[in-house]
Amino acid sequence: MIRKGETICAPATGSGGAIAVIRMSGPESFNICGKIFSSQGKNVTLSKMKGYSIVFGEIRDSDEIVDEVLVSVFRSPHSYTGEDSVEISCHASPYIQKRMLELLIRNGAVSANPGEFTQRAFMNGKIDLSQAEAVADLIASSSSASHRLAMNQMRGGFSAEISKLRAELLNFASLIELELDFGEEDVEFADRGQLLLITESVIAITEKLASSFLLGNVIKNGIPVAIIGKPNSGKSTLLNVLLMEDKAIVSDIPGTTRDVIEDTIVIDGLEYRFIDTAGLRDTEDVIETMGIKKTHEKIGQASIILLVDEATDDPASINNRIENIRALDKENGKKIIVIINKNDLVSDEESLKLRGKITLQHGEEMLFISARQRDGIDELRTMLGRSAGIGKISTENVIITNVRHYEALLNVTESLRRVDDGVNSGIPEDLIAIDIRQAIHYLGEITGEITTDEILGNIFKNFCIGK
Amino acid sequence: MIRKGETICAPATGSGGAIAVIRMSGPESFNICGKIFSSQGKNVTLSKMKGYSIVFGEIRDSDEIVDEVLVSVFRSPHSYTGEDSVEISCHASPYIQKRMLELLIRNGAVSANPGEFTQRAFMNGKIDLSQAEAVADLIASSSSASHRLAMNQMRGGFSAEISKLRAELLNFASLIELELDFGEEDVEFADRGQLLLITESVIAITEKLASSFLLGNVIKNGIPVAIIGKPNSGKSTLLNVLLMEDKAIVSDIPGTTRDVIEDTIVIDGLEYRFIDTAGLRDTEDVIETMGIKKTHEKIGQASIILLVDEATDDPASINNRIENIRALDKENGKKIIVIINKNDLVSDEESLKLRGKITLQHGEEMLFISARQRDGIDELRTMLGRSAGIGKISTENVIITNVRHYEALLNVTESLRRVDDGVNSGIPEDLIAIDIRQAIHYLGEITGEITTDEILGNIFKNFCIGK
Repeated sequence: MIRKGETICAPATGSGGAIAVIRMSGPESFNICGKIFSSQGKNVTLSKMKGYSIVFGEIRDSDEIVDEVLVSVFRSPHSYTGEDSVEISCHASPYIQKRMLELLIRNGAVSANPGEFTQRAFMNGKIDLSQAEAVADLIASSSSASHRLAMNQMRGGFSAEISKLRAELLNFASLIELELDFGEEDVEFADRGQLLLITESVIAITEKLASSFLLGNVIKNGIPVAIIGKPNSGKSTLLNVLLMEDKAIVSDIPGTTRDVIEDTIVIDGLEYRFIDTAGLRDTEDVIETMGIKKTHEKIGQASIILLVDEATDDPASINNRIENIRALDKENGKKIIVIINKNDLVSDEESLKLRGKITLQHGEEMLFISARQRDGIDELRTMLGRSAGIGKISTENVIITNVRHYEALLNVTESLRRVDDGVNSGIPEDLIAIDIRQAIHYLGEITGEITTDEILGNIFKNFCIGK
Repeated sequence: MIRKGETICAPATGSGGAIAVIRMSGPESFNICGKIFSSQGKNVTLSKMKGYSIVFGEIRDSDEIVDEVLVSVFRSPHSYTGEDSVEISCHASPYIQKRMLELLIRNGAVSANPGEFTQRAFMNGKIDLSQAEAVADLIASSSSASHRLAMNQMRGGFSAEISKLRAELLNFASLIELELDFGEEDVEFADRGQLLLITESVIAITEKLASSFLLGNVIKNGIPVAIIGKPNSGKSTLLNVLLMEDKAIVSDIPGTTRDVIEDTIVIDGLEYRFIDTAGLRDTEDVIETMGIKKTHEKIGQASIILLVDEATDDPASINNRIENIRALDKENGKKIIVIINKNDLVSDEESLKLRGKITLQHGEEMLFISARQRDGIDELRTMLGRSAGIGKISTENVIITNVRHYEALLNVTESLRRVDDGVNSGIPEDLIAIDIRQAIHYLGEITGEITTDEILGNIFKNFCIGK
């Protein structure tokens, strides 16, 4: 997968728009681009241009002008990849982009694999592996919280934390290994009490980091919300109103709503993801035919459950449905919000009367709304925001969002616990050293000091082309 | 619509991808960007940077880093718009783009209207109006022929032709008007015989240009092809096979097929557009319910008609259907290709026998294929390519593609014909002068020497945002 000598090229911008950028990186970048580029009728020796400079001119295929472009020049090592690179800014016609890529390839470039630019940045020591992963997260970020975590990670916040731990353990390991060198002499360079203090402090940090994954995962992937209720209770209307209001909030800047992800809303910088809304969107019947098993699954995946009932229902059946949901939530970890919809169909008195007859348990909430009349929707948004139970997310703390990091941290903790046990039970230094080295290895996997083609392959295959 | 003092901003790239570019142009560009941009922790005075240079740094919203970006600086008048401009290259997250635009707007920029950057390039004399229009055509170009025409027009090929004609007429007009200045004296500065030669040569050119519109329109918008036939003759299979083969041809470069336009194929650099294929795509029944009126309309819009029949049909009914199509094509301007599909279901002998019994008229063609087995598809592509009747398109000739230009040219011709008639019938100079001025006016409309807010509004509203 790793091709060092090749010069790679790919479109870096998305489809549509006015301009497109084609990226090229590798030793032959200037040479290849120079063969097809001219400015004011003259060839341009890109290799003689200053880095971070731009030149306007034409890309030609023999006599034919393919496009008028801006070529940006970046010289090794001061580029994203660390290699000589050019970015060709052209008109965003798919036809033109195709012609340009064909020309670059015909002149010696190869098509870049997904994430290959970022992979080269990593291979060339411009960024570490967790920073590389953050680049993909940053591009995918769709709420302020997920954006902030990805940015912090890309800027090296997490890497710094890991490096600190690693440095402490390396110091520790070298002392232990020094004892091994002295073999039979039975010296003790590493004060065992001191060592235990160090491992315990490292374990405390890795455990805290690992436990932040639950939060990090929610921030990165959104808080799963299930909308449940009997047919015709107005679930689809409620969903549509929530999504529409959210769209209205985010679409105040033209040209920026193109990518609004379906069936998610953002409250206070956190994303709420509605689970399995296909049925809700189409007809109320679909949800029924999917049956009770599907509903169980849906509740299983959710952190927040919106149970939609009607103000015209009788209290007994509403209480009954709440009871059913509770029964399904065995671990009692989910937030249940009882929505009494169609409040416009009953009088204030009836509404008040119904309210008195619904029995809620601690932590459950109830809200009377009219989805059709968009009444109570703001209150519902506020209630959802509160229900995430996350509060204001601090950027001070490092929060991990990546399952690969999570698993590595669990492995670090486990290795260090064995060290702890080993020291306490007085097992030989060489066995302790192995466990410490193991912990160091797992920490190194996070930042990429230790890596394999397989790990790299898994990480970069999920990148988009051109990054 | 025209806002000169404002500094405009907009996303310039499409959705998706790895990087996005946000464009800003206007007197405050450097100042606004400078307020939110810093490099290595320090503010950057963009107004002191060289044009065509790039600086790496961070966009900040107060203390928060919104993204790490590249800022490209272009100084007036050496920019696309002719104004001070910056391009901010950031990560392609819609969230980040939205934040950036909000920041720019909060600091004094305004959201750009569609085409406003190009409109400013026009207002500032960087390009003329027909070149501005070519920018939009270039972005939309999807075949080599449409690309070449747009490129030629953007580079000023058409404008040069128009300017030449305009210069001749201006010279002519000034001589006539000189005669008017001398009023009663009855001098003749403009040799009438000479004048007639000039008008006639200009008319010859404007007529040739106007008549190139038919070809230009076909190149720009594609050659309309109708697929007609009875139910289950395999129309949808044929369409799918044609589209799939075309996709296979264009998709050899990764990342470039994202924008393949539905239901068009490209043969020899020309686009063929299948008309009204909705029914064909879904089920054969839909097309039937749409009925005979819809089929008439479809044939009316087409240049090429593919009549799909089956090798198992009897010759009489095939001949009958061909006859029906002919009857609908009253002007006899359409190319009819009779496709005998499902040729795999009959023996070679039966196939040969059927062939002998189908009566074709001059210009009609017939092809035996099996869409299901992809047999004969290459031949069909060749036949389609030949049927366009355009041949190899020369870039030497100026071909017009724009209905606005076409109408202006018709007006020029009409005015000049009145001049011709006037000179021949010896009408007074002042009336002749009016008609010449009229012709000059219409030529000026094409390149934008003469323009109105309405014309500009109509042209730029069809542009994308960010161009």
